[in-house]
Order: sequence, then structure tokens, then C-alpha cells
Amino acid sequence: MTTTRERLLAATNELFRRQGFNGTSMSEITKVSGSPTGSLYHFFPGGKDDLGAAVLTESGASYRALFELIADAAPDAATAVADFFEGAAVVLEETDYIDPCPIGTVAREVASTNDRLRRAADAVFDSWVEAAAEMFEHDGLARLDAEELATTVVAALEGGFILARTRGDAEQLRIIGRRMTALTAATLSTAIETNTSGA
Amino acid sequence: MTTTRERLLAATNELFRRQGFNGTSMSEITKVSGSPTGSLYHFFPGGKDDLGAAVLTESGASYRALFELIADAAPDAATAVADFFEGAAVVLEETDYIDPCPIGTVAREVASTNDRLRRAADAVFDSWVEAAAEMFEHDGLARLDAEELATTVVAALEGGFILARTRGDAEQLRIIGRRMTALTAATLSTAIETNTSGA
Repeated sequence: MTTTRERLLAATNELFRRQGFNGTSMSEITKVSGSPTGSLYHFFPGGKDDLGAAVLTESGASYRALFELIADAAPDAATAVADFFEGAAVVLEETDYIDPCPIGTVAREVASTNDRLRRAADAVFDSWVEAAAEMFEHDGLARLDAEELATTVVAALEGGFILARTRGDAEQLRIIGRRMTALTAATLSTAIETNTSGA
Repeated sequence: MTTTRERLLAATNELFRRQGFNGTSMSEITKVSGSPTGSLYHFFPGGKDDLGAAVLTESGASYRALFELIADAAPDAATAVADFFEGAAVVLEETDYIDPCPIGTVAREVASTNDRLRRAADAVFDSWVEAAAEMFEHDGLARLDAEELATTVVAALEGGFILARTRGDAEQLRIIGRRMTALTAATLSTAIETNTSGA
């Protein structure tokens, strides 16, 4: 059974994905979630900032879990990158191009104005970079190389959401996914050559 | 001499870069620009949408001109990519991490809710991809390859703005810039090998 707290989070998540943080009012959240204003403040005493921070943290954790599932199922890191971008492209198509990621939208809106939400978003991105870096390290990259490649893949994904939504065409994300897959394969292959020649 | 129209555009541009489209009110724009509400509607009869579209189109054209200056001064396309990311990192540091690019923020906020601004942002991204693709083509890439690499570099730059602002650290953008420089060099080198072996 869906609890009131879960309904509030789901409604806020979807509203942020459609219209961002500043474009979403508390009254829309109570209306879409079908919850009275009293329960909103019961679960989130700090109002929109509390709710926003919870949406970022919880959706960030879901995406990390999804990434780890995809990474575990893939034969190698380059395939995992390809599969994740393809999955994101399908989500865009199936949800009529609302933002797959409320974190990127909210982060960009509030980075200069709301330090609490900025820090919540930063913790999410850091956790994604960590998950991807672990996978790259497992496939043979040195720690720093793995972190830098992971940072680049996360940035390309977030930028890809912007281009694909603005164009209304998921092919933009597929193009970027193919290039990130190639970059991953090339980086791993160079690292493996270096390790072999150094051995 | 700065005209009233220019003051209105400059104020709106900076407000969007700090707090996005939905976070910026018409009264803030008139206040920061020092212009009466009457002149705002004289120059932009459609109000915030007209002003927003003009900010996207004009700042998009400035960035394209800046990119072309950097590309003309660089010895090759990979160096131009490196120089552009480094320039963006310096701008972030010097402007206390407000968004270097109002287009990306506004695009992500309004892609699902304001078709006019979505189309204005799409035209800007398309123009940037075209400018970078021309440079890559000039350096030896086939048209499709050049367009796909350009799309990826623009996405990585936009995503890099998100990560660097959220972390409050321009090093994030420098990391991504180095990887995009490497991807550019590798893509061009593969194309040149293919062309040479095919000749």
C-alpha cells in the first residue's frame, strides 16, 4: 500500500520532472498527491525544501540502484554504459520527454540560491560517480582515471537529457551514449595495454 | 551607450543564470535593470516569454561567436575543445559559480511546459553543434561523425556546468574538458588513419 509520504514524494518527483523546483507550488503538490496540506507539513516540516531534499536523495538512490543492476547484468563496463543510455532514451520516449532526472533540473535551478538543495544534489552526483568509478576500476582502470571517466559519463548523461528534451528526440541521447561507450572502451583498452606492457 | 533594451537583456540574462526562468519575476527584472515596467513591455510586448526568447537567442549567438574565435585561434580541433572548457572553468570561478549558460538552465526548466522557449533553446544548441561540427569536418571528420562528436561535446559541457556548479568546483569542468579533448583527438586520429589507409 502506498503511504501518504510516498504519494507526496511521487507527486513532487513528477512535478519537478515536468516543471522544475521553482515552477512547482506547494498547492500543486497537495493537489496532485491528493494529500491535505496538514500531512505535507507533518511529513516534511520544512515544507518545499524538506520535500525537495527528500526527492533528490531518494530518486538519486533509485537511479544508483538501477545503474548497479544494469552494471551487474552487463558483460563489461562499456556495455553497461551503452545499456544505461539506451534505457534512459526509452524512458524519455515513454514519458513524453519529461525529465528523467529531477536532480539535474533542480540542481541547475538552485545551485546559486539554495545551499541545502545544492548539497543534496552534490551528494547524489557524487554517489553516481562513485558507483560508475567502482565499475571502471573493477574493469581495470586506476582509481583517478576511473573517477574522471565516471564524472564525464555522468555529465554527458545530464547534458544529454537537456539536448534530447529540448529537441524532443531521444536519438540525441543515443548519439551521446554511443560516444561515451566508445570513450569507455578506448580508456579501458589503453589502461589494459599500459598494464600489460608495464608487467 | 547602453540602451534600455540592452539593460533589460543583460539584467534578465544574469537573473536567469543565478535563479533560472521560473525563479525570476518581472518585478526583479525591472528593478535590476533600472527600467520602468512600461519600457519592458515597449521592447518586449509578450513579457517574460519575449524577453526569455531574446536572452536565449542573443546569448546563444555570443557563445557561438566566442567558440568560433577560440576555434580560429587554436592549432587544431582538440586544442579548441580544451581551450573552450578551460575558458568556461575560469568564467565559473570568476563569477562565483552562477551558471555560465542561461540557455541550459531555462531549457531544462521549460522543455515540457513552454514550447516557444523550448524551440528557441533548440535553435541555439543546433547552432552550437553546427559550429563545432564544421570545425571537426575541417579537421578531417566525415559529416555524420562530426555532428555526433559535436553533440557529445555540447552535452558534456552542459552537464559539466551542472556538476561544477553543484560541487562549487570548476575542476569538475576541467576533468570533463580533458576527456572531451582526448575523445576529439582519438576520433580525429581514427578518421585520419581510415582516410589514409583507404587512399
